[in-house]
Amino acid sequence: MTLRIQCLDIDCREPGTVADFWEAALGWRRTHEAADQIVLEPPEGSPEDGVSPDLLFLRVPDPTPGKNRLHLDLRPDDQEREVERLEALGAKRARVGQPETVRWIVMSDPEGNEFCVLPPLSPDQ
Amino acid sequence: MTLRIQCLDIDCREPGTVADFWEAALGWRRTHEAADQIVLEPPEGSPEDGVSPDLLFLRVPDPTPGKNRLHLDLRPDDQEREVERLEALGAKRARVGQPETVRWIVMSDPEGNEFCVLPPLSPDQ
Repeated sequence: MTLRIQCLDIDCREPGTVADFWEAALGWRRTHEAADQIVLEPPEGSPEDGVSPDLLFLRVPDPTPGKNRLHLDLRPDDQEREVERLEALGAKRARVGQPETVRWIVMSDPEGNEFCVLPPLSPDQ
Repeated sequence: MTLRIQCLDIDCREPGTVADFWEAALGWRRTHEAADQIVLEPPEGSPEDGVSPDLLFLRVPDPTPGKNRLHLDLRPDDQEREVERLEALGAKRARVGQPETVRWIVMSDPEGNEFCVLPPLSPDQ
């Protein structure tokens, strides 16, 4: 394989605000910070370290034009507790047209980027 | 860490077309296919397998509202050769306001999702 995913880039009005949220939400570490960009990487020594894509928060002048075309799905151990923790960090529950019956919870980060908190993996998954 | 990134979700008008492109671009494997969604996972046995987020292509009715707020950066061994290969797969070079002097190449996939092909890592990175 000669082509790898290096990072997921997230356009921000205020990279610091958004990166603060995701740093706390995921427990990742800030490995680069400049005026217009911040990099988060997985915890040192974790299976994701050096393997999973980094998150790169970029300052851009333009606001989000509508619902994001790309979003992250997060897998918690305890869905309800994680949703409460994320709300305390500044996330909000979001309505994007999902049915009432779905098992995932749609939220948005402090700049309105939608993401989903999935149910925990069952033991046979 | 109790919250992990499970997958990156990509809204598509035609999931098959977009997943075909990314499957070939990255050399990933199709592990789930239904009418409205397709999952790609990293190659079996690779460092990314079971660690990096999957890619989930979801059928949605709405078109992209503008430039994507999130995008992927890809790291090639050989930038020029990979760009040619991606063009042959259906990607196009894109102008999103980047300066002429940047070392990454902005492209878009068959549905117009922008991504960047970075220069190769230099030995000291």
